[in-house]
This record gives sequence, C-alpha cells and structure tokens, in this order.
Amino acid sequence: MAPSAVPANTHAGEPSLNLTSAAIEHRTHGTVEANGTSNITNGVHTNSLPKLDASKLTYSFTKTPREIPAPGVTSEDGNSICTDHMICVPWKAKSGWGTPELKPYGPLSLMPTASVLHYATECFEGMKAYRGHDGKLRLFRPDCNAERMLMSSVRISLPAFEPSELERLVLALMAVDGPKWLPRERPGTFIYLRPTMIGTQAALGALLYIIASYMPVMDNPVGGMRLHTSPDDMVRAWVGGFGYAKVGANYGPSLLATQEARERGFGQILWLYGKEGYCTEAGASNFFVVWKDKETGKTQVVTAPLDDRLILDGVTRRSVLQLIRERLADEVEVVERKYTIGEVMEAESEGRLLECFASGTAYFVMPISLIHHRGQDLPFPMGKAGEGGSVTLKVKGWLKDIMYGGEQHPWGVVVPEEQ
Amino acid sequence: MAPSAVPANTHAGEPSLNLTSAAIEHRTHGTVEANGTSNITNGVHTNSLPKLDASKLTYSFTKTPREIPAPGVTSEDGNSICTDHMICVPWKAKSGWGTPELKPYGPLSLMPTASVLHYATECFEGMKAYRGHDGKLRLFRPDCNAERMLMSSVRISLPAFEPSELERLVLALMAVDGPKWLPRERPGTFIYLRPTMIGTQAALGALLYIIASYMPVMDNPVGGMRLHTSPDDMVRAWVGGFGYAKVGANYGPSLLATQEARERGFGQILWLYGKEGYCTEAGASNFFVVWKDKETGKTQVVTAPLDDRLILDGVTRRSVLQLIRERLADEVEVVERKYTIGEVMEAESEGRLLECFASGTAYFVMPISLIHHRGQDLPFPMGKAGEGGSVTLKVKGWLKDIMYGGEQHPWGVVVPEEQ
Repeated sequence: MAPSAVPANTHAGEPSLNLTSAAIEHRTHGTVEANGTSNITNGVHTNSLPKLDASKLTYSFTKTPREIPAPGVTSEDGNSICTDHMICVPWKAKSGWGTPELKPYGPLSLMPTASVLHYATECFEGMKAYRGHDGKLRLFRPDCNAERMLMSSVRISLPAFEPSELERLVLALMAVDGPKWLPRERPGTFIYLRPTMIGTQAALGALLYIIASYMPVMDNPVGGMRLHTSPDDMVRAWVGGFGYAKVGANYGPSLLATQEARERGFGQILWLYGKEGYCTEAGASNFFVVWKDKETGKTQVVTAPLDDRLILDGVTRRSVLQLIRERLADEVEVVERKYTIGEVMEAESEGRLLECFASGTAYFVMPISLIHHRGQDLPFPMGKAGEGGSVTLKVKGWLKDIMYGGEQHPWGVVVPEEQ
Repeated sequence: MAPSAVPANTHAGEPSLNLTSAAIEHRTHGTVEANGTSNITNGVHTNSLPKLDASKLTYSFTKTPREIPAPGVTSEDGNSICTDHMICVPWKAKSGWGTPELKPYGPLSLMPTASVLHYATECFEGMKAYRGHDGKLRLFRPDCNAERMLMSSVRISLPAFEPSELERLVLALMAVDGPKWLPRERPGTFIYLRPTMIGTQAALGALLYIIASYMPVMDNPVGGMRLHTSPDDMVRAWVGGFGYAKVGANYGPSLLATQEARERGFGQILWLYGKEGYCTEAGASNFFVVWKDKETGKTQVVTAPLDDRLILDGVTRRSVLQLIRERLADEVEVVERKYTIGEVMEAESEGRLLECFASGTAYFVMPISLIHHRGQDLPFPMGKAGEGGSVTLKVKGWLKDIMYGGEQHPWGVVVPEEQ
C-alpha cells in the first residue's frame, strides 16, 4: 500500500491506511447503500446513517453578488468565472451525509493531508444548463450524469449516494443562480456545471460540491478539429483499469501527450489501444467515424464499444447513437465495435470515408477534419459549408433543439427558476 | 480533452484548457528548466523566471505550539498528528517559483476549480527522518526522493525544479521541527515526510508543500504480511502508463481491490500483470522473492525490472539490491527480471522457495508469510524466529544501522539541527 501521510489502523496485525477505510467503508461486496456505508460494517448495521438528502438544503446567500460578464467573456485573470453560489455536502464515515448547503462561491479549506491531494480520490461530472430560445432553463439528461457520478464514486472508493438527490441539488443551484447568470436576454447560451467529490482527511470524510462556471463555445473550430494519434509509448486507459469512470486519474496523466500534440498544431489526441491500434477516445471525447462498410456498402456510424470498459459511457455519445437509431434508421446503421486506425486509413484510401466527429459535454458535437497518424495525414470530408458532414450536422441540430427548447423532449429537463 | 471547470484558451482555432498550459508550459521536448518553464515558451526566452531557491526560505513560527504525543501515539481523532510547521512554495506560469515559506501547519485554501481536485495533477514523495541511537537526526538518501519527485512532477505536467533545492527544504523543515518532534530521548524513532506538489487553479499555478507526520511502525506484523494476488479484472499499471511515477493516479484507483483484500484478511494486493501473471508490486511496495534457481541451484533474490516502467523505482528497493550485491555477493545472486506467479508457485512446490519480502518507505522491509492466488495458499518460510528469512533480516539490519547511525554511511544524511 501507499506510504501515507495519515496514520494506519491495524487489522489482524496488518497495517491499513485510514484513508482506505475512510473511503471504502461504505461499500461491501456489491452492495452499496445510499448513505455511503456498507449495510454491514464491522458487524454493525449502519444503514441508519443519514443519506444524501436534497430536501435538507440550507441557503446562505452571498452578500457580495458579482456582476455577470459581457457575452462571450468566460474568464478573468486566467480564472474561470463562476456563479455567485456553490453547493457543498460533507460526508463522514461515522455520521453519513451531512446537510447540503448552498453558500457563496469561494475557496475550500483542506488539510494538507487530505487524501484527494495525494491519492487522487476524486471524481466529477460535466454537464451544462441551457437558456432556451423559449426562455426556459434546461438541463440535458441530468439523471445520466448523476448515475455515472455514483459509478465513478464507488470505483474511486468514495461514498455512495442516491443519484436523484444529486440531480435535485444541481437543479437547486441552477434555480438560484440560473436567472441571473443565464439571463433570459441571452437565449442560446449555456453554463457549465461541475459536480465534484473529493476525499478529505479529517475523520474519514469526503466532500461533494457543485459549482457552475462559464466556458467558451468549443464545437465550431475553424476548419474542424485536427487529431494526432497517441504516441507509441503512451496509453490512456487499459482493460482492467478505470478508463470508463470519470475519475481524476484518467485526466492528469494524459495532459503531457495532449500538450505535445497542441504544440504541433493538433487539437486533441486520438487514443489508440493495443498493437492493433484500436480507436478509443479523442481527448476525453467519444469518437465516431461515418463510412461505407467495406462488405455491404451500407453507410455506418462506427464507434468504440463500452464492454471492455476502456472508454467513458458519454451522455452525448449515448444520445447521438439513440437519435441516429431512431431518426436515421433507413440511411445509417449504428455499429458499436472495436475498429482500428488501419481500417479508418483503408476506408479513407478507398474513398469510403464520409465524415468523422467527436462528442462530449464540453465539445458538444465537434467535426474532425484530419487525423495525423505515424507521419501521415488523413483528411476527412467536412461537408459543403466546411462545418461538418451531414450526419454530424443533423445530430448536432437535433441535440441543440432538445437542449434549447426547439423541440420538447424528455431529455430536456426544465429547471424551475425562482423569482 | 477533458471538459473543464476552467476556461479554454484558443490556439489556432482549437480549444485548449488553461490547466493544461498551466501545468505543462514548463516543459518542451525533453528540456526541463529548473524554473518550471520550458526554455522557450511562445518564442519568448523565459528561463529568467525565478527557480526554486531554498536559500530564500522565510520563517513564520507558530504561536500555538502543540505538545508532542506519547511514544507510539500517531493519530488523534482519526487524523494523523503532524508537526508544528510546514513549508509551502507557490509556482505560477508567469512568475516561476515564489518564496519558500516555513509556517504553522494548517489547512490549505484551494479554489473549487483547482485542477488537483478534478484532474489529479498531483505527485508526492514519501521519506522518513530518523532519530539515531547516536542522538543525530538523519534522512535516508533524500537526493533519490528529490530526483524522483522531479520525474513524477514532469510526468503529471507540473512544474520542474532543481532537486537539490527540494532536499534543502526538507532539511530545513526537520532542522526546525526535528529537535522537538523527534526528541533525543526517543532514539530509534522516525517521522514521515511528505513533499507534495499539486496543480492549483489561480493564474496557472501549482503549490509545492512539505509536511511531517507520525506514522506507526509497520515492518513487524505478527506472523508476517499475507498477500492476495490481484483480481483477474483489475490491473494497477500498464506498459505505456505511469506506474513508475509517484502520482496520485496510481493510488486512488487501487484502493478498491486493496480494501476487498483487507476484508478477507490479507494485508496487501500482489499486483500481477498480463496473461502471464508477472509479479510487479505488493501494494505500493516493491516485491522480492528469494529462491534456489531452477537451473543452477544458486540462491537468487529476484525482483521485477524497471525497464518496462510498470513499477516504482523504490529508494528502498534500490538500496536493498545494492547492499545485497555488495555484501552478500558470495551467497546470493541479484536478478532483476520479469517472473511470474507460476514460477513462484513452482518454486514453492519444489521446495526451492526460501523467503519473500516487500520493501518501501512506509513498510520498510516487511517479511511476507503467504500469498493467496486463485484459491490456493502459498506459505513462505519465515525464518527460525518467525520474523523473516535470513536475507530479509540481514538487509533490514543493515538498512536500520545506516538509518539510525549504527553504521556511518553516505546514505544517512545528518540534519543540522537548530538549538
């Protein structure tokens, strides 16, 4: 086990880090209780501990509200601009989930020994709130994010919770900050929401918090995004690892390769896997190729499968596939399978490659114009207007309509706003 | 790239996380400058930025010194007991390394958007200070820890520094807190030192800090440590990953398997790699087997090699191998090579297995009494007194002597104490 800045407990004469027990005491053999503890801990029935409960949310409003920035301004002095408030909920192994508190946005106080600062006991979600053209404020499938956050949390040994309660807390933050920070006078804009959970030191604890920040529009790079395949000696995720979970440990280690690619004029890394060179993710976005199948000649949207747990089960990915299945079934076949960069190159050289895009919350649906692989450039068609191929643009349009109220759809969850 | 709570810069029409540039601006194509910046950034020569400089250390002493705990007490209310002071040094992309400050131990203030809390931009070192039987205070090969910290820092895209300056800061902290917290009246005791670097949000920054805490003695578990081999569906590190670096991303994700093993009465996971089942690390300790070689009959100490970068280049590992090479050359052959759990099982069944131990700063040299693999128990000889085999005990004794001044050795670096 890791050398540790925290003291060890002893168990049958064995040392045991308290951060370990801190973090994992909640979970036992597949049973996760929403109070973040296993239902039996040391033989004691503990699931009477308080669960995460959004109905207990308390409100302390800021006394120094800030002005919202001009349209298009998203940062100040190199810092992202966040809204006036955040929501924090402490968790302790002994007492379960504490009272959720909405309070002024500001710094967190963490002990230098906090496990998040040493052992990456952290996970997060990325989602957006959208100000609709109909004036309404919406989240997009927040239930999916809340469920994935639970999965990530358990994978990284942080406490469990009832996902619907997290969803309620996100709605509550937007109910307070949405009217001001996503004003009705700015339809078609969004704000980025970041639910985060971290392992804290004191008394075997964790902290769940939710912040909202501005973020630039990223889905329309001039000329499409250019990808560089991953270096031979770097692998993002591996079978048996944690590539499918939204944990910090997937991100920090890939910054190095990403920055190298940026310095060479590429936007993201296309992460390949194994000797075969399977295509997995583009940066931390899901990656899609549209081609004519070699055998059948049919138009296919192909993307990596989830079953080997290498890639993130993206909410946008899932939505893209579902919309194509529902609305383009006659024209396009959806295929989730392993496919290699060699197959992509072959399709390109045979003129079967139609378009290519990445999807994710931050990048939304992003057309890819080129992949650079081992000294070779693979250009992708970018459609007539140079803004992406026809499947890319159709899917993007449908999703935008759902997000901004152009289409009433169950995926667009309206935030009941105060005032 | 990761959805981000921080704003994106644009570079050639491409979004670019400022945490990325924050973290990596220091590094370019293999050239790392000790001021933490690349020598050329955006065409501007920047290595005139301040470097990490221990000679600039300022001192703000605590006004509320705490009492040191009774011998053997290492934690309070589930928190590790730290010394009165810590050292902090901020880094900013624009201004390089700031002034190192020794100040009262206490909480850190971090913005909720700090990259360490989301993307695991963090690395650390584990080392100990030892109160010798000759009254002197020593560090053990601090140069090795400082150099490894630089390697980890660059791997996780945090700023670079001159390792000898980090070493000086560690000495400075111990010069102040050593006399009180490792009193001369308690010879043979140690304190755990944790240099840590984290990515902070504000203005593309990082923070280096050093804390010192008590930690229990872990190298004498009753009956030796019992290991459980890693579950089939979990891999700690992989070729092309970052298993060799002391970054948070190696630790959080392995807590889950470790806790499952603990619940079943084992101390640590023996992490196997690949279909072949190569033995890599025991927990986050290096792992050694002593056996009679199948072919030659010679006694060998076998441990995993460093060249595929799966395992940590442990300071204790390196010292163990060097001492055996220097002092037991006639009796024992040192072999660094890939070896499988199958080979270990075979040696055990043929009576060739002599002993087994793990090494690391926290666990020191820890005898292993048993490995549980796929339903089978492999018991290891634990020597006459049940405290470990003869190679294990010899190495442990030599190291202890160097650490506690029983042998004057260049690896034992004396801390010049104040007062």
